[in-house]
Amino acid sequence: MSSVNQPEKKGRTIFFKNSPKIISTSTVAGPKECSGIIGSYVEKALDDDMFGESTFEKAECKMLSTVIDGAIKNAALEREQVDVLFSGDLLNQIISASFAARDFNIPFLGVYSACSTMSESILLAAAMVNAGYCKTAVAATGSHFASAERQYRYPLEQGTTRPPQSQWTVTGAGACLISESGDGVKIVNGTMGKVVDFGVTDVNNMGAAMAPACADTLIQHFKDTGTEPDEYDLILSGDLGALGSRILKDLCWEKGFDVSEKHVDCGEIIYKVIEDEFQGGSGAGCSAVVFNSYVFTRMKQLKFRKVLFAATGALLSTVSSGQGESIPCISHAVQLEI
Amino acid sequence: MSSVNQPEKKGRTIFFKNSPKIISTSTVAGPKECSGIIGSYVEKALDDDMFGESTFEKAECKMLSTVIDGAIKNAALEREQVDVLFSGDLLNQIISASFAARDFNIPFLGVYSACSTMSESILLAAAMVNAGYCKTAVAATGSHFASAERQYRYPLEQGTTRPPQSQWTVTGAGACLISESGDGVKIVNGTMGKVVDFGVTDVNNMGAAMAPACADTLIQHFKDTGTEPDEYDLILSGDLGALGSRILKDLCWEKGFDVSEKHVDCGEIIYKVIEDEFQGGSGAGCSAVVFNSYVFTRMKQLKFRKVLFAATGALLSTVSSGQGESIPCISHAVQLEI
Repeated sequence: MSSVNQPEKKGRTIFFKNSPKIISTSTVAGPKECSGIIGSYVEKALDDDMFGESTFEKAECKMLSTVIDGAIKNAALEREQVDVLFSGDLLNQIISASFAARDFNIPFLGVYSACSTMSESILLAAAMVNAGYCKTAVAATGSHFASAERQYRYPLEQGTTRPPQSQWTVTGAGACLISESGDGVKIVNGTMGKVVDFGVTDVNNMGAAMAPACADTLIQHFKDTGTEPDEYDLILSGDLGALGSRILKDLCWEKGFDVSEKHVDCGEIIYKVIEDEFQGGSGAGCSAVVFNSYVFTRMKQLKFRKVLFAATGALLSTVSSGQGESIPCISHAVQLEI
Repeated sequence: MSSVNQPEKKGRTIFFKNSPKIISTSTVAGPKECSGIIGSYVEKALDDDMFGESTFEKAECKMLSTVIDGAIKNAALEREQVDVLFSGDLLNQIISASFAARDFNIPFLGVYSACSTMSESILLAAAMVNAGYCKTAVAATGSHFASAERQYRYPLEQGTTRPPQSQWTVTGAGACLISESGDGVKIVNGTMGKVVDFGVTDVNNMGAAMAPACADTLIQHFKDTGTEPDEYDLILSGDLGALGSRILKDLCWEKGFDVSEKHVDCGEIIYKVIEDEFQGGSGAGCSAVVFNSYVFTRMKQLKFRKVLFAATGALLSTVSSGQGESIPCISHAVQLEI
């Protein structure tokens, strides 16, 4: 697989010459998420988004544990055969990931890039496997509507009205197992994101805040790899929602890259009909669920052969917003082929 | 430098055959921290821990920006020459790291392992440089007493009494620049931590919570590398404090590894006299400051030639503690030589 003349890195893109592969995935999602088209691809559909736990946070943690365990089992591996777990989530101090990791006797490297955590985790896991440090790695993340609402916005009990530019945090989690060998989806390269801040301060308008970071990474990726948007079967952004997706397409078009034909946003397609969710889904679980269920399945079916997956994260906190800061955003991307 | 027969990884330890090096560091710390012995090694001693900012959080972010910039300048590099920044901190959604990264036009990979963030960042940065993905990487973290108190415990204005088993979050930050070439401290290998939870629920007794995770990683390191504690000039733990350090020594001794002669804890040595601080310093900034100032300088002076650095992190949040959870902990270690 190695090409001697291909560099390890160009610009912000790392090339994985040894073709680490995603050999299995696992997903779980709540009832609302599973009522849509994506839902039919989800491995474990929940009847109740409490998942048998006493708190939303414990339910979120259990979803993560479930998909980490699921990805390992779906690869027909034992836990002892997994060399490292990369995971993070939206809760303060990434407690869902840390507490999930407690259930597994696997080295754990905690990461955080908000809703870009899925692609950051895949990028780092692929880098470790490609370098020969590890034979197998799991990348996982998730989110929960109710735990996110009470941490970032208002307690649900308050019944606060949502503005039309808002999105709905996905209740769900996804994991994938990356291996040096076996059949699966090849991780060809990864483009590291930079923090981009266009000065958006409206915490209900994440799509507008994140779109410039996504455009920055996509354009950098096209330049570093010498590819064109049309070469991809799918250019998948994380959770820009309907409004953010339109901004992304405009920003790319302005720079000479027309992604409009190939672009799909996880947040736009996860819900059946967008009503309460306004602009669509968001949260680390949004792209984790859509990528690891629908997109991975369609790649295995050879319906999509070449995919660029750029999850997008807003790196704000309630404290930073309270102190008048704008919203810095980031997007990490991985190129996948089968 | 390569040895063909040496594996890339054994157990939980990754061996860096191409010897990535720490070629420069930078540190900043508050007045209280700089009054002790370590303070004389700190690059920038603050007169005022507000650092000219309007909030504690902004001061923390500015400290991080300062040391990232400092490490780059001390290596006589330009920002454009740095391939990636690994950083995280204790604040919710690692806002200090994310907002600091906004000031630099450098790819940013956010990490989180609480007070083990310094060694996790060095481990990942060394892995990227060693694999040839990057020529240079910066690893950075920090903490601030006042922002940590109001996030994790009580507002300072409340004047809450501190229990005797507590520690004092260090106001300070540290960064190091890891390069494939140049003179510096070699990063020989890194041992990835696992989440260890002995069931401690007292959020004021972090030393007792973290000591088992540190012991687990140290013992794993000795086994993976075939080294003995006596081979090291220094076995440096992150922020166990006085009580935690005694527990660490006992736990290692019980497993047949006597670290007592070589062990030093960053939290135990950072303050001049331990009074208000009770068990000593803590926080991500604790080991970041001690390692990147005192330890790095002494290594460059050849006073320490072989150091095992295992920063330690408690992966709790106020929500997890409030929901009755115990404190899962982790410790990542890197072996350094000159």
